[in-house]
Amino acid sequence: MQRIANGVWKVRYGEPEQHTPVTLGQKGIQYDALEQLQCEGKSPIANTDISVRMTSRGTVVELPLRHDEEIYGFGLQFYRLKQTGRKRVIRVNSDPIADTGDSHAPVPFYISTAGYGVFIDTSRYATFYCGTNLPKGASRRKTSSEGELGTSEKELYGHQAAQGDLSILVDVPSAKGIDIYLFEGPTIKTAIQRYNLFSGGGCLPPLWGLGMWYRFYTAANESDTERLATMFREERMPVDVLGFEPGWHSQAYSCSFSWNKEGFPNHEKLINRLNEMNYHVNLWEHVFTHPSSEMYEELLPYSADFEVWKGLVPDFATKESSEIFSSYHLHNFVENGISGFKLDECDSSDYVQSNWSFPDVASFPSGLDGEQMHNQLGLLYQSTMQSTFDTAGIRTFSQVRSSGALAASYPFVLYSDLYQHDVFIRGLVNSGFAGLLWSPEVRSASSVEDFIRRIQTTVFSPMAVLNCWTFPNPPWMQVDRDKNRKGEFFDNYEEVQEACRHLFELRMSLIPYLYASFAQYHQRGIPPFRALVMDYPDDANTYEIDDSYMMGDSILVAPLIAGQTERKVYLPRGTWKDFWTNETYAGETWYDIAADLDHIPVFVKDNTLLSIATPLQCVADDAVFEIVVRIYGDSPKDFVLYEDDGRTLSYRDGVSNSVTLSWSPDHGGSVTRVGDYSGVKYKVVDWVKQRTDLSN
Amino acid sequence: MQRIANGVWKVRYGEPEQHTPVTLGQKGIQYDALEQLQCEGKSPIANTDISVRMTSRGTVVELPLRHDEEIYGFGLQFYRLKQTGRKRVIRVNSDPIADTGDSHAPVPFYISTAGYGVFIDTSRYATFYCGTNLPKGASRRKTSSEGELGTSEKELYGHQAAQGDLSILVDVPSAKGIDIYLFEGPTIKTAIQRYNLFSGGGCLPPLWGLGMWYRFYTAANESDTERLATMFREERMPVDVLGFEPGWHSQAYSCSFSWNKEGFPNHEKLINRLNEMNYHVNLWEHVFTHPSSEMYEELLPYSADFEVWKGLVPDFATKESSEIFSSYHLHNFVENGISGFKLDECDSSDYVQSNWSFPDVASFPSGLDGEQMHNQLGLLYQSTMQSTFDTAGIRTFSQVRSSGALAASYPFVLYSDLYQHDVFIRGLVNSGFAGLLWSPEVRSASSVEDFIRRIQTTVFSPMAVLNCWTFPNPPWMQVDRDKNRKGEFFDNYEEVQEACRHLFELRMSLIPYLYASFAQYHQRGIPPFRALVMDYPDDANTYEIDDSYMMGDSILVAPLIAGQTERKVYLPRGTWKDFWTNETYAGETWYDIAADLDHIPVFVKDNTLLSIATPLQCVADDAVFEIVVRIYGDSPKDFVLYEDDGRTLSYRDGVSNSVTLSWSPDHGGSVTRVGDYSGVKYKVVDWVKQRTDLSN
Repeated sequence: MQRIANGVWKVRYGEPEQHTPVTLGQKGIQYDALEQLQCEGKSPIANTDISVRMTSRGTVVELPLRHDEEIYGFGLQFYRLKQTGRKRVIRVNSDPIADTGDSHAPVPFYISTAGYGVFIDTSRYATFYCGTNLPKGASRRKTSSEGELGTSEKELYGHQAAQGDLSILVDVPSAKGIDIYLFEGPTIKTAIQRYNLFSGGGCLPPLWGLGMWYRFYTAANESDTERLATMFREERMPVDVLGFEPGWHSQAYSCSFSWNKEGFPNHEKLINRLNEMNYHVNLWEHVFTHPSSEMYEELLPYSADFEVWKGLVPDFATKESSEIFSSYHLHNFVENGISGFKLDECDSSDYVQSNWSFPDVASFPSGLDGEQMHNQLGLLYQSTMQSTFDTAGIRTFSQVRSSGALAASYPFVLYSDLYQHDVFIRGLVNSGFAGLLWSPEVRSASSVEDFIRRIQTTVFSPMAVLNCWTFPNPPWMQVDRDKNRKGEFFDNYEEVQEACRHLFELRMSLIPYLYASFAQYHQRGIPPFRALVMDYPDDANTYEIDDSYMMGDSILVAPLIAGQTERKVYLPRGTWKDFWTNETYAGETWYDIAADLDHIPVFVKDNTLLSIATPLQCVADDAVFEIVVRIYGDSPKDFVLYEDDGRTLSYRDGVSNSVTLSWSPDHGGSVTRVGDYSGVKYKVVDWVKQRTDLSN
Repeated sequence: MQRIANGVWKVRYGEPEQHTPVTLGQKGIQYDALEQLQCEGKSPIANTDISVRMTSRGTVVELPLRHDEEIYGFGLQFYRLKQTGRKRVIRVNSDPIADTGDSHAPVPFYISTAGYGVFIDTSRYATFYCGTNLPKGASRRKTSSEGELGTSEKELYGHQAAQGDLSILVDVPSAKGIDIYLFEGPTIKTAIQRYNLFSGGGCLPPLWGLGMWYRFYTAANESDTERLATMFREERMPVDVLGFEPGWHSQAYSCSFSWNKEGFPNHEKLINRLNEMNYHVNLWEHVFTHPSSEMYEELLPYSADFEVWKGLVPDFATKESSEIFSSYHLHNFVENGISGFKLDECDSSDYVQSNWSFPDVASFPSGLDGEQMHNQLGLLYQSTMQSTFDTAGIRTFSQVRSSGALAASYPFVLYSDLYQHDVFIRGLVNSGFAGLLWSPEVRSASSVEDFIRRIQTTVFSPMAVLNCWTFPNPPWMQVDRDKNRKGEFFDNYEEVQEACRHLFELRMSLIPYLYASFAQYHQRGIPPFRALVMDYPDDANTYEIDDSYMMGDSILVAPLIAGQTERKVYLPRGTWKDFWTNETYAGETWYDIAADLDHIPVFVKDNTLLSIATPLQCVADDAVFEIVVRIYGDSPKDFVLYEDDGRTLSYRDGVSNSVTLSWSPDHGGSVTRVGDYSGVKYKVVDWVKQRTDLSN
């Protein structure tokens, strides 16, 4: 058992494979930050409690699982929060339609309520059996009281709850050995912090990335996009990022990576005008490189042996391929005012109508095979594009459709073609267990109610996106796609727009708080969006909550989906205040919370100083946030805002400030700014004590 | 390239695994029958056109695929007929919810419209990529006309039809070598015949197995079951087989394999009484053996290292385990009047609510691992139970929920917990490509229409089952489960019952024809139920037809599902007659066929002699079918009925007759009986020339 860093342990069995998440993509371990985390300094699982054997199929790992432990994690799991008793296959697949473990971003990492984490360093389609089966003979020795005869499939298949101590079996195909990393607690959250710091620390997005995103209709041309961009500003709809969908390419699927000259004859001017209006521009693409691309011939030797959609599959595990791609993007796009990309289809699909992507048996020049590449492509793609922005010296906040292990440091947010709102919320809750960011984007809506409810979730998420790729006109004018295309708008569309505007403004007002939460992610590995169980691991009431979550340390969000007018909300220990009304709620209690269409249940932890900014239309480079500090409770804890230029990499050299907000009944509010950043992003304009007289 | 039998070739690469479908379960190759099939005597694929390489992941096979070939097969595929362009994973999984290849009975065997078949002898979760990807650089050399920009996922992902010659890639995990078997045509049907004869020839069910099946409510007790059994006879509802569901066990899930003494204190008498009423009795079970089972201690050493549902997983690849199980079933059940079993849950599930079964990493004493066992368990289970009946000297016709490669000789019919009627029909169409039998059982219904439509499909299937395991009263009294349980019956239930009775009688009238079709399966390997493309491989109109099928050589069945009042039906070359009205239809034509609830479109090939029997209530041991021969066309081909005792194994010693029906306008009808069976099962009572004056 080798100590890798404070609270991080490694144990090797046999001869691990050459290509694994650690060898392919680990960013620098954050040793200093890890040192700050207390721990026992003892591996959470003893060597003697781990059994590993090699078979003709690969490597089998057996880890202990006590009967009172609950297991979470495995990446962006859409269909289940608590993974105890489940089989999870760590296999990248877009749009998984069943609860198998397949995901856009599966991760071979789990954490336990017993307060530790386990990472199996493999790019293989590993399968985790989380206490699914008792060993032979176990039931022979037990007096089991059998249940009633079932008369439905559910009863027959479901009544086999595990009894007694079990194990977690990990089936790693092909491997002849394995490295296992163990992360000490003492709590779930600390174990995850360690995993994130081991991964390089959480990403720090640019400030503008936390504003509103609007992705254009895929068939929109130059004038369409400029018309909308102008309209947003005129109509005071806050938007920071504009996204172009496949139609910007001269050829897509696969991609040419060059502008469609018919639709965008003056694309350079267009991008300039958008930049002048303080928009950031994001371009859709995927890796599959069409023969018409300028990169094609150069990439040919560094690509897989099979095509996808008539395009090459560049092997980003080769330096050459990554550099060709990165350099092309730098010179053609980033240097011309593009701030980010949407990296599509780096997953693969067994489940959608047309299965696609390269075979698992594909060979890549780097030595990876198709199976490994499927689980790594999203990560290698992010790394390639990250290097483009590193070279340019600016940050990006981008989108990606696949990710995986050790991804925390990448400023890329996941999205999916799935679209169940409740599933999207669960994705948000689960993403925090695995160093991932997830965007429950608004892509379409069955009704105005559905539209508003979805926006309400997205503004309380890492990336607030309206992806209007199938809508020529803004969806607040008409959510029905066909009518939108025909220009048949709601009679009351201005009311719908007004509701949207309020929500966009709400998002803008939360940016300083969100940015501080991301700074915690970056510096200490604390996920900005996370399950309640992560903050309240001793409270079994939180163990199954997959429909509400913490945003930062102080805000609990409980979204509503269309059709709901009230919902159950559990508030953990302490006292909570309604974000909208300041009503007081006692903790450790379940509530039925009713809400009209204007609001979703949001609660603020008592004794919090919460920064609410005057909403800007966008985060320009010189933007300053005017902040009202809401004072909840009589003895609020200090709150530290994080301040830097919000856009470049100078923070990596320590050019940033800690802006500490303090308040006491006797002395009132004070702002203490410490650090090397000379600018000012935040201006506290008021301190407002929240009413405490109302109680629920 | 080794010649195994006439038209059957084998090629070995590397060192194949010890446990494969051939080593684990191949029944005797039917060399003589294979000799009867014409062929070129040349392997359909040259050695030089096959590429095989071993990697750390296993073995990769590459086989040619011409641009004008279409691929079918891969076992009981529910979601697709034509497999060209698809990725298929040969992985046993119950209730697959997506078109991945997973199935209750996947088979690593495909056939091509070019007229050959390929069997990859592996028990692994092999993946077949059927022309999914072009090799690197292929598109570079092409002038491709790209389509319009898509504005929906379907357009974007779907417009990549393969161009040019491709390949079929087979990814066989873990293996360090592989045996490939190639089956000559010249047609699809001949290639399948060869595969079936290589598998031991098709099964021959007992005559009673082709009657109607009724499975009881799972919580039914002795008096409930006897009451229904008596009622069926009194009310003249033809039923041959009565099935008992889990409630007959003293313990289930897992199974005790002993009678529930509370519900069935006099089960021996009950079975006797049912046998006296000429019922055959079928008992539900699965392999998972509860500690309370008498077999438990004996099976313990010959079981997997993990439990399922607190029960042992016997290793039927060990002689010991199989013999303990088989012998127990012989002495406790088959010798006491039980005629068959329903072998449940020998699949596994990643897709249902509670995933279950043993892990892929499980170890079995035989040396199989969990992955191999998942793909073999259904087959080994069938083999074990088959040996019980072989010892008893009688035939069974039984049910099984999982099967796979080389299964043709097992008299077990597949079923599933899936329940979409159109999916069930497609299963029936696909089953014939892979030596499998599939039962689109009627398990529940959303309406009387749905109920009748489903019965209409099941009576034109290998096994006509009403599985009423959740209905205490016959579903013709009430199809709503809750009302059925409360005894709230349809006001017009006698009308519904009458409609059922007609359909049950229809089934009974088809038994001689069906039995002859099964004899063709047994003797010549011709699937009794099959896709149109199998009989009309030169007609591209048949390539996508997944909603109608051939039943035997002369009948084309085109079921309707609830909501349909008409449907498109394609009739291939030749002339066809409506089974119900004798209307004449020209072939090579698509028709819109309307049908009321009484009928589904069924057509008889012209120049056919079709045997229609007077419906019996059941097929008693001494049953004789009174047959009316329908004469279609002016120069009908002879039709050969197959005759034997219908229940024992004496047919294996050749104790059977060919009963040839001939007719000519000049000489009328004649019956020629040849063979060693001394009994008479068929009595031709009339010859009826079908009208030819009507035409469509």
